[in-house]
Amino acid sequence: MRFIILFLFPILCFSQTDSIFIRKIYDEALLRGKAYEDLRQLCKDIGPRLSGSSEAQMAVEWSEQKMKSYGFDKVYLQEINVPHWERGTKETAWLRTNRGELTKLNILALGGSIGTDGILTSEAVEFKSLDQLKEAKRSQVEGKIVFLNQPMDAAQIQTFKAYGLCYGIRGNGAVEASKLGAKAVVIRSLGLPTDHNPHTGSMHYEENVEKIPAGALSTQDADLLSNALKNGKIELILEMDCRSYPDAVSYNVIAEITGSKFPNEIITFGGHLDSWDTGEGAHDDGAGVIHCLEALRILKELKYKPEHTLRVVFFMNEENGNMGGKSYATWVKEKGEKHIAALESDRGGFSPRGFGCDGTDAQVKFLQSLAPNFTSYDLHVFEKGYGGVDIGPLKESFPGIPLFGFIPDSQRYFDFHHAPSDVFENVNKRELELGAAAIASFVYLLDLQIK
Amino acid sequence: MRFIILFLFPILCFSQTDSIFIRKIYDEALLRGKAYEDLRQLCKDIGPRLSGSSEAQMAVEWSEQKMKSYGFDKVYLQEINVPHWERGTKETAWLRTNRGELTKLNILALGGSIGTDGILTSEAVEFKSLDQLKEAKRSQVEGKIVFLNQPMDAAQIQTFKAYGLCYGIRGNGAVEASKLGAKAVVIRSLGLPTDHNPHTGSMHYEENVEKIPAGALSTQDADLLSNALKNGKIELILEMDCRSYPDAVSYNVIAEITGSKFPNEIITFGGHLDSWDTGEGAHDDGAGVIHCLEALRILKELKYKPEHTLRVVFFMNEENGNMGGKSYATWVKEKGEKHIAALESDRGGFSPRGFGCDGTDAQVKFLQSLAPNFTSYDLHVFEKGYGGVDIGPLKESFPGIPLFGFIPDSQRYFDFHHAPSDVFENVNKRELELGAAAIASFVYLLDLQIK
Repeated sequence: MRFIILFLFPILCFSQTDSIFIRKIYDEALLRGKAYEDLRQLCKDIGPRLSGSSEAQMAVEWSEQKMKSYGFDKVYLQEINVPHWERGTKETAWLRTNRGELTKLNILALGGSIGTDGILTSEAVEFKSLDQLKEAKRSQVEGKIVFLNQPMDAAQIQTFKAYGLCYGIRGNGAVEASKLGAKAVVIRSLGLPTDHNPHTGSMHYEENVEKIPAGALSTQDADLLSNALKNGKIELILEMDCRSYPDAVSYNVIAEITGSKFPNEIITFGGHLDSWDTGEGAHDDGAGVIHCLEALRILKELKYKPEHTLRVVFFMNEENGNMGGKSYATWVKEKGEKHIAALESDRGGFSPRGFGCDGTDAQVKFLQSLAPNFTSYDLHVFEKGYGGVDIGPLKESFPGIPLFGFIPDSQRYFDFHHAPSDVFENVNKRELELGAAAIASFVYLLDLQIK
Repeated sequence: MRFIILFLFPILCFSQTDSIFIRKIYDEALLRGKAYEDLRQLCKDIGPRLSGSSEAQMAVEWSEQKMKSYGFDKVYLQEINVPHWERGTKETAWLRTNRGELTKLNILALGGSIGTDGILTSEAVEFKSLDQLKEAKRSQVEGKIVFLNQPMDAAQIQTFKAYGLCYGIRGNGAVEASKLGAKAVVIRSLGLPTDHNPHTGSMHYEENVEKIPAGALSTQDADLLSNALKNGKIELILEMDCRSYPDAVSYNVIAEITGSKFPNEIITFGGHLDSWDTGEGAHDDGAGVIHCLEALRILKELKYKPEHTLRVVFFMNEENGNMGGKSYATWVKEKGEKHIAALESDRGGFSPRGFGCDGTDAQVKFLQSLAPNFTSYDLHVFEKGYGGVDIGPLKESFPGIPLFGFIPDSQRYFDFHHAPSDVFENVNKRELELGAAAIASFVYLLDLQIK
């Protein structure tokens, strides 16, 4: 695995030729772009597309056809196995006060949760964090429904950091509550606004810990429940008939332009095709896959002949298993391919801010050397950071490979993430197009400057 | 007029104390902010508020009350005269083909336009720019309705630049068309998306050039009309009963915290309270006035004692006359005040990018010296630029005064600008709050570092 950056002439990092070509990329994206219409089709003609669902299969077929229509050198599928979980048809939550007053709450089961097996009624007990729950006595929790009410910290400027700080209540809430004998867990949605939209997402169970149902309340209803608990005992009445099915066959969808000098040296860039089963997966991660598809289309349209093979991967199953990312990393290693860099877009279709690099100091410096190319396009973040869930496993297959993450503005992301509001209408056309142009430009520079 | 920057210790530009205080500003804005609710009231309880309208008067009263409720040292009004134009109740446009087919078009009269005096029907003639119209022969134009169909250039990364390039068709279209004998002018709306929303805005007439009616078609309908013209003659049928009334009395609304060391040295910051009479003036410029109000509230809430007098001005009549800005600059000069800097927010309530400075090289350098304070808040644009329409006249009253303009992300601005879609729902809470925090921090640093 070679990763040597040519610093022979500083001009290499910002040449007139590059500048002109990048301007052409932006013109193509903004004046003749296909990104917005392609995202519309994915969101509106197909819609949400959870792994294992019919819609996910439709999305695979749509993606393959779309890639073929753009005339790339190769378009093919990688078969993988994915979990198959379905939300079912019953999903309700009611709050009952000790005076018998009932209020309906907005709830979404967490992905992977078992159902309630009929109606489950029990007293609610609130904790403000996972740590607070862990410190509780069994007598406080046993037989009850644990309510994990940890708000995302609005003071964090980087919203993904606020998300990370709350992630535990969703991922580990069921296990920790079950260890203390709880019957179920409901969490405050991991969303920043106070509104009626619940945000789903993945959770996990552990062997030897009894599985209990888990759901997310809208932030508004979490406040309502919390306030009600201040006035006395509250019962929650839950019914969810979600369940898991045997693993299903699915696919990563792949398109590439073959490298003219180093066809066996691959630059992978992509996002994930699957989405949660609510909303339309517009920002998460319809925007990401369309960014990358559009970037490859633009480079082809401009008749760019890459030195290395440029490969777009629409990964399947990022949301609840990452089987697409894991299988891809193993598969390409077994095939004897050489992977020299990878990039992921999985932070939404917002106005671009820059790129992060999960790599060595030298690789981060290389990233920073590209910054001048983007100044006039308002990109300013070029720093050590995170690549993405899908491309993460490539690190094990190709030690030393730099992973890059596209960074758009994050302020609106957690309004929509995993919620019914993650729909096409909440993606702005220009912001989406600018993301595709930034990624196309970045991949172009990578191809030229990685040796 | 003194403007000397202390560069005795570089640490002055980025001190621990400043850093801690700015973090407190952001915490107040994001955790206990009033900006979003205040903007909701202005947009929903009052709504659009064109100069001279009852709603503008309601907005003045609401603003004064709101400022008083925050307990600033002084709250007062400056009386001014403003133009008074009303859209009326009739505003329709139809396209008729030579086969007699009729299609209704979405139109808004331009602000200040005369009406059509009943139904006006005439052949349409298209020009792609104001220059193309100016080069036309009288025989091409006389007796017709001129259609100025110049799209905003989507390839411009800075959308305000694209706006500037098209501004002429709106501002001068009627005069140039009239000079060649046109009966009316319709323009393609100055908006970036292709949609059904017309965008209004100011236009002007000239003495000795006959006044003709002027309207803006939605971009979608401009395309429709342009396509129809490719297939033969098209008649436009216009009816608009907009008209001007005698000037009205109105007010700039002013709040201040008196300077502890230099009470007669003023830092003015504000936006404009008036808006076009369509939509709710949410981004233009509800966001701007609320940014500044919230900034002053935060500084007061944090018990900051400014050295100079910090004054927020809600200017009236930026949209069609700038009588607020002009009158203010004259009035404060006459009162013998010393103005040491001014800032305006009039580019919407989007995610902050930075500040521009209309000033000398030294003043721009001073601006740039503040940049490190904002790095962790994702602000990165600190450059020579534009202040704002309202504060512009201060340059004449106080030669050498630096004018600063707040710069948020501009990609979505021309989706909404002067259109029915400029409503509260299209402003994001966090983005608005981050703007208020950025401005509060900036004013704090100005107060400390301008001597």
